[in-house]
Amino acid sequence: MTNRKEVAKLAGVSEATVSRVLNGIGPMKESTRDRVLEAAKRLNYELNAVASSFARGKSGNLGVVLPYVPKVHLFSTYYFSELLSGIGEAVRSKGYGLLLMFRDPAVAYDYVSLYRTQRVDACIVLGASEIDSEKEGINRLADEGLPFCVMDQRFDNPLVSIVAADHEQGSYEAVRHLLDKGFKRIGFLNGSPQYSNSRDRMTGYGRALRDAGIRLDESIVYEGNYSRTSGRLAAIPVHRDLSRLDAIFVSNDRMAIGLMQGLREQGCRLPEDLKVVAYDDSDAASVTEPPLTTVKVPFYDMGRLAAEKLLTRLMDKESSEAVINERLQTELKIRKSSGD
Amino acid sequence: MTNRKEVAKLAGVSEATVSRVLNGIGPMKESTRDRVLEAAKRLNYELNAVASSFARGKSGNLGVVLPYVPKVHLFSTYYFSELLSGIGEAVRSKGYGLLLMFRDPAVAYDYVSLYRTQRVDACIVLGASEIDSEKEGINRLADEGLPFCVMDQRFDNPLVSIVAADHEQGSYEAVRHLLDKGFKRIGFLNGSPQYSNSRDRMTGYGRALRDAGIRLDESIVYEGNYSRTSGRLAAIPVHRDLSRLDAIFVSNDRMAIGLMQGLREQGCRLPEDLKVVAYDDSDAASVTEPPLTTVKVPFYDMGRLAAEKLLTRLMDKESSEAVINERLQTELKIRKSSGD
Repeated sequence: MTNRKEVAKLAGVSEATVSRVLNGIGPMKESTRDRVLEAAKRLNYELNAVASSFARGKSGNLGVVLPYVPKVHLFSTYYFSELLSGIGEAVRSKGYGLLLMFRDPAVAYDYVSLYRTQRVDACIVLGASEIDSEKEGINRLADEGLPFCVMDQRFDNPLVSIVAADHEQGSYEAVRHLLDKGFKRIGFLNGSPQYSNSRDRMTGYGRALRDAGIRLDESIVYEGNYSRTSGRLAAIPVHRDLSRLDAIFVSNDRMAIGLMQGLREQGCRLPEDLKVVAYDDSDAASVTEPPLTTVKVPFYDMGRLAAEKLLTRLMDKESSEAVINERLQTELKIRKSSGD
Repeated sequence: MTNRKEVAKLAGVSEATVSRVLNGIGPMKESTRDRVLEAAKRLNYELNAVASSFARGKSGNLGVVLPYVPKVHLFSTYYFSELLSGIGEAVRSKGYGLLLMFRDPAVAYDYVSLYRTQRVDACIVLGASEIDSEKEGINRLADEGLPFCVMDQRFDNPLVSIVAADHEQGSYEAVRHLLDKGFKRIGFLNGSPQYSNSRDRMTGYGRALRDAGIRLDESIVYEGNYSRTSGRLAAIPVHRDLSRLDAIFVSNDRMAIGLMQGLREQGCRLPEDLKVVAYDDSDAASVTEPPLTTVKVPFYDMGRLAAEKLLTRLMDKESSEAVINERLQTELKIRKSSGD
């Protein structure tokens, strides 16, 4: 392998100068920098992506902007932790750093200055929702043509890059599974409609019922906020309606776990008294009693794909697509909570 | 509240100049910059910590360096996700960014150039172990007197800042709980001794037995690697030794969950055939069947404390301590897996 000494010799500079150029340290005559980079290239000197980013005046960082939610340990939720694991893998394999920042969802976030101040070369937006302030921040980013990608949330603007899962189809298959087993009275505990992924689940739920000739009954549709506590609270109306329910579809595992806990506290036997199908296939899904039938979402793959596409675009602007639009498929995992 | 206009007026510059100074954008005469900062200060103009960091030529980022472990979704492990949630909270509340990077544990990581290239102002090292390459990277960092902190791992070097949990005491109390319930033949499934926190658990286990007049029996001490799979594999020797075991202490919840799964597959009834005490009190601990008696570790608080101490040091070098050395207490959570 080529070493720093050989690069220094070919460029006619000291080894220290080679290091300074490749690490972007201190001021440097442009001609010297060019000579070093040229020599490194000719000798196939393995440039660390970060070092070479610095040499080109880039940050070497992929930004990830998360919503700040007081008291929630965001990294400990399966959704964010898996997305970040996937993003982290892509970033690591390309030698980038991952710069995490928090936004207040109620205020339009100034993404653009992250690029201007060279803190990031590209950005992934996690946990975005439909509220005006969020849309405003993202639309500004799209207007500037900067490389970014929104995760798992749709926006009207065709200039917004998106990597998402097909939650309509995932939900359709979840409800279809219950219908196939002969259950007809299927409730739905959904998350907030400010997320397009909640609305997509609702569309899939409605379509599955319609295809089976069943009218959607709004009185057995409940709303939580994707937290375990909100699932536990939903046990009160669900228990009240128990005589009208065969089964319930729940928009994530956390709420399903809270719901099952709450129902059990009120004396329910599960799955005998109510069949449950959840969503995510988080680590906890297979260790609950009964284990959860749930829709597996490839969050890790989604995070990795978004990051890889963005970093590829940074390295090769010409041949890569300008707007990313990917939708990944989910997979139903059948366990005992749905009566199997 | 003071606005940008008033700062611009007092400093005798345009509003755009105020923004450029506070966001560190582009070149700027030093006298102009000083005048803007002085005016902002006099008017108590609320400087965003990051903006002012940039104005001072800092990155505004706290670095977090994680070990790269192929195929492991690091953010999805309770240990890392809770530490990161705590670090994230401190970083967010002080207006910093969190720059995540991965290291190959087999190679001495060049922390020092992260500071030199102004990618970070301070660093937290997660998941460090005792191997030479790791020690070398960290000792170099200590030699340079740069602000950093190692999480939950002890090093001989007194210049290394550490925030850890008291795993010796936590383990002592876990084993003591089993002894108090009359169980005498207590096995131990530990993680790798390359982590000081594994060795500390072993010390606590041994001390609890000794205090009860019981000789430590090496033949019922097992080793895993903190993964669920390694716990499931340990079910083979544990099942073989079952006639010699009343209970087992396991170094984290993941391995305990794997072990219980493996034992059940071999026909064991739990907790009837074997009492289990685990470690961490992760989300999964309370949803397993039986729910896990486990040692709660304040990972979130540890992460937050380390980040707050480092960021405080950055903002006020004079009055803050140079070396951080904190040890937080654990708490035993009693549930059904230990026979209650």
